[in-house]
Formats: sequence, structure tokens, C-alpha cells
Amino acid sequence: MATGHTDPRRRERIIAATLDLIAEEGLAAVSHRKIARRAGVPLGSMTYHFSGMDELLREAFSEFTGHVVAIFDTHLAAPSGPEEAREAVAGLIHALSEDSTRDLVLTQELYALAARRPAYRELTREWMRRSRVHLEKYFAPDTARQLDALIEGLTLHLALSREPHDRALTLEAIARITAPGGAPPREP
Amino acid sequence: MATGHTDPRRRERIIAATLDLIAEEGLAAVSHRKIARRAGVPLGSMTYHFSGMDELLREAFSEFTGHVVAIFDTHLAAPSGPEEAREAVAGLIHALSEDSTRDLVLTQELYALAARRPAYRELTREWMRRSRVHLEKYFAPDTARQLDALIEGLTLHLALSREPHDRALTLEAIARITAPGGAPPREP
Repeated sequence: MATGHTDPRRRERIIAATLDLIAEEGLAAVSHRKIARRAGVPLGSMTYHFSGMDELLREAFSEFTGHVVAIFDTHLAAPSGPEEAREAVAGLIHALSEDSTRDLVLTQELYALAARRPAYRELTREWMRRSRVHLEKYFAPDTARQLDALIEGLTLHLALSREPHDRALTLEAIARITAPGGAPPREP
Repeated sequence: MATGHTDPRRRERIIAATLDLIAEEGLAAVSHRKIARRAGVPLGSMTYHFSGMDELLREAFSEFTGHVVAIFDTHLAAPSGPEEAREAVAGLIHALSEDSTRDLVLTQELYALAARRPAYRELTREWMRRSRVHLEKYFAPDTARQLDALIEGLTLHLALSREPHDRALTLEAIARITAPGGAPPREP
């Protein structure tokens, strides 16, 4: 595995190993030593590429949230209007909740980190902002924000429940939260 | 701190210490030794009260979800109908998202555990079931399920964002997801 220390893939390998270990064992179990072993790089290489665990965690979770935003991209780039977008959001929720235990675990680990240490909320805020950019192509900003929260909750509940995943029910929830004029007018 | 080993409060102290440690350091950092020290009980007392870490985690998270269900109780026992229930749910979401970093962290740690190890999903399923019992007093079961997901997502997003918590927007989302006849009819 050993390669020259200017190997650009070494940095990527460290980030991938960090995410693998967090997914398998949890954030609190991660150490420089374990990550280096998993990535197949010398321990000294860690400090060459990252100033410390904080920078490494930021880079790793930034990589992860980029991966989830790319799933949003895949589902939400094509729709031609709100009606197709509702179908696409239902597809997105079912893809997110059915596909990957790893993504589900990493999401919860990131939220636990951000909950415990507010300095990491920049990551979750940026993630929310990038998700909403897609939704705001089809819906008003307030609606996009409500829809984003619904996506979060439905994805989690579907992933953790053993109930059958009823796509019609998901679509109905999306239709309700995005119904034009379906809610009472807000005070200015 | 040492008391007789039949002290009924010893078991409670162990559970409280387990939740404190998980909230502060994360699930992966928890050990029998750390919990015993934190609880002020001899290490041997751990195996007297719990068959192992699995049983202890189940009991601890069961205690925690009971605490959150009690917050649901407090907010949702009084409403006399759907309109008051919508206001009460908005109050619940803002209480959950503003009150306690500890509850937020423990929630994410439990979800990460359940995501990683499906055997723990009995805990999250039971938690969802108990939350929905309250919502089903005012709304149809499918609506209660959608509303429960919205509560989950909005609570998390409000807790992690630094945006002002706009109660009118929360109430609007609740009104939309629970609108009578607001969504297209479902196929039978």
C-alpha cells in the first residue's frame, strides 16, 4: 500500500478510511492511529495532510454531505415543474431510506457531532442550504424549508421502521406540504 | 457514595450515568468501568443489575425515550380537538428543538445505534408507536404518521440551524400536513 507521500490519492484514502471507521464503530472510537492503519498510510502522513482531528472530521463529513447532495442532484435535476418534482422527491426519500445503512449511520453521527459541538453546525447548515437550492427551483423558499424537514423525517422513519414503504403515502405527504394555497395565509 | 447493594437507587444511578456519558462522549466511548465510576457504584454492581452492555443500553435508551414521550404527553394531553392540537404540536416542536442539547444528542446517538444494529430498532419502533398514539387522538393514522415525520424533521432542522425559530412557519407546515381533504385521494 505504501506510496510516495506526494501521492494525491493518499489524502482521499485517509478521508474514506475516516468515514468507514465512523460508520462502523462510531465517532468516539476513531483515532489517528486507527485511521492511518485503515487507509494504509504511515501515521506521520496524517499530520502532513490534516492539521488535526477537527480538520479531518470537517473534510470527511464535507465529503459525505457532498455525496448525499449528489443524490439530491440525481433525483431533482430532471423535473420540469412542481408536479414532476413531487414524484422526484418521493423517489429521493425512498432511495435515501432504502439504499444505504452507511449513509443513515453517517447522517446520525454528523447530527450527534453538530448537536454536541455547535462549531460543526456550519457543516449541517451548508448541507441544508445546498439541499434547499434544489427544492427552491420548484417551490417557494418557505415551502422548500418545510419540505426539506419532511424529507428528513420521512427518510429516517422509513429507514428505521419495519413497516412496508408505502410510496403513495409518501407522495401524499409531499402533496400536502407543497399544496398551493393549501395552508392558511401567514401574518406579514 | 457507597451504599448497600440492594439499594434500589443504584440501578437508576447506573442508567442515569450511562445516558450522561453517551450524551457527553458518544456511545462508542462508553464502558462498564466508566459508567460504574460515574454512577459511584462498584464495578461488580454492574453485572448484578444488568446482564451486559446490551441490556444496559436498552434500559438506558428506554428510559430516555420515556422521557421524550412524557414531553409529548405534556403538550398533547390537553387539546380538545384538531385545531388546538395543531397549536400544541407547534409548541412541542419548539420545546423539543430549543430546550435540551442533551436530548438532541441522545436522540441522534440512539438513531445511529438503531441504524447500525437492527436489533435496537425495537426501541425506535416502540418510541414511534407511543408518539403516534397521541397524534392519533386528533388525526387519522396516516396523517399522524406523516405529522410524526414532520415533527422529527422540523425539530432537528430548527435545533441545528441558527435561523430564528419562526413559529408561524412551523404552524403553517403542521396545518398543511394535517389539512382535511388537502391532498389528492389515495388509491384503495
